[in-house]
Amino acid sequence: MTRQELIEQIRTKHSFLCVGLDVDLDKIPKHLLECEDPIFEFNKSIIDATKEYCVAYKPNIAFYECYGPKGWESLKKTIDYIPKDIFIIADAKRGDIGNTSSYYAKTFFEYLNCDSVTVAPYMGSDSVTPFLSFENKWVILLALTSNHGATDFQTVQTTSGEELYKTVLRKASQWGTKENLMFVVGATRAEMIAEVRNIVPEHFFLVPGVGAQGGSLDEVVKYGWTNDCGLLINSSRGIIYASNGHDFAEKAAEEALKIQKEMATLLLEKGF
Amino acid sequence: MTRQELIEQIRTKHSFLCVGLDVDLDKIPKHLLECEDPIFEFNKSIIDATKEYCVAYKPNIAFYECYGPKGWESLKKTIDYIPKDIFIIADAKRGDIGNTSSYYAKTFFEYLNCDSVTVAPYMGSDSVTPFLSFENKWVILLALTSNHGATDFQTVQTTSGEELYKTVLRKASQWGTKENLMFVVGATRAEMIAEVRNIVPEHFFLVPGVGAQGGSLDEVVKYGWTNDCGLLINSSRGIIYASNGHDFAEKAAEEALKIQKEMATLLLEKGF
Repeated sequence: MTRQELIEQIRTKHSFLCVGLDVDLDKIPKHLLECEDPIFEFNKSIIDATKEYCVAYKPNIAFYECYGPKGWESLKKTIDYIPKDIFIIADAKRGDIGNTSSYYAKTFFEYLNCDSVTVAPYMGSDSVTPFLSFENKWVILLALTSNHGATDFQTVQTTSGEELYKTVLRKASQWGTKENLMFVVGATRAEMIAEVRNIVPEHFFLVPGVGAQGGSLDEVVKYGWTNDCGLLINSSRGIIYASNGHDFAEKAAEEALKIQKEMATLLLEKGF
Repeated sequence: MTRQELIEQIRTKHSFLCVGLDVDLDKIPKHLLECEDPIFEFNKSIIDATKEYCVAYKPNIAFYECYGPKGWESLKKTIDYIPKDIFIIADAKRGDIGNTSSYYAKTFFEYLNCDSVTVAPYMGSDSVTPFLSFENKWVILLALTSNHGATDFQTVQTTSGEELYKTVLRKASQWGTKENLMFVVGATRAEMIAEVRNIVPEHFFLVPGVGAQGGSLDEVVKYGWTNDCGLLINSSRGIIYASNGHDFAEKAAEEALKIQKEMATLLLEKGF
């Protein structure tokens, strides 16, 4: 998907919501466990219920991989089921030496046909650039994450007078463009989003940590907004586990609609 | 596998060689492509041919994952085929927020029953510690890698007066012990191994980059040796692609034996 197509989708749906498909068999409604493929059945219902309110889906690969080949089949079926106009993020946090990264890229961009993949920056340029050579496919690079371990290395002060995550933003923005590179920027400390926006004024951010992890939607928009919106806000548990009864899909739709309405208001305020 | 069992294996086999199973269908002998599972057939022959000369196998997950469920089946069959006394490294370079990392840990330690998994440190403590809570299982954390992108972030100078990879070593060595935590330390600049050894005097290192990438075995031993050996040296392409004809397994055995003999000499010199 191109940047322009993503922006059009945000305009049409009045939403920049990404729904995280982190499916845990211990948390989904018990009655689904009798199905042949409970993970896919759950995702199918969640997608049907929320697809009008979101512009992206983000399956986290860990939750599929742990079931081996069967999990990969559930993942593939899920991705194939997502409507083609919705942006798909493989949340995989991969990254290896060049030749190996190109195999990961084939997995997520060719075999699974996702639009994007999350990548960890520690191994540097040749671990990231192989993902950037696929047309209309995206790298979403970890910059500042929302977990507490983010302060171990990401915010380490470097002798260039800035925290490491800023060095990551500066260097990586030379490897890709606003057309094929986004950044993960956590919402737990909203004022830091302003500093990130200052360094990369035009790139899209994938923002986790709104809701459950304490970030505020208003603040993310206040600090992270660009002329083209430039934001995808992820919510996983708050939507997909809104209920674990027979009404799980309805409740997921209600939660997604609630966020979409807030987003519509914010977009209107921005004249978008 | 415990640290003591690994050390015993090094003593018995006079070897600290790890064979990397990075199987690329474009590089394996053409006649194998007619098999139902060429990747497994290739690995089976390589394992049979080299198991006397090495103490560890390291499949890189990227090369299996790109074939979807079928690739995961080849991976599972390969791991099940490796003799139980040989240390198995899932080279996966995973790492995510705590709950998600624990699912990756289940994949590699329970579903696949590997002894260890490579982990990327960027997301910090809670992305690493879930892997450390499995008995007799290991994290092999990226510290200083052997690719050229290693200089993008790993060697960035921090205001504590050291490069980032040293901060990674110092912090991570508080999360795990020499019994459950190793580090990836590339061999391309051998004198840097001495600096790493100085910071973590007892942890095992997994050392890539010997051979094809220019590192020297003598120098790695000179700078990285501990009283318990403390080194696993990986070779992938130099062994598994020594020939792409019908003699590929014999040639792999010859290459592995050549390295094992060098290692035996070095071990003898060290009185090990």
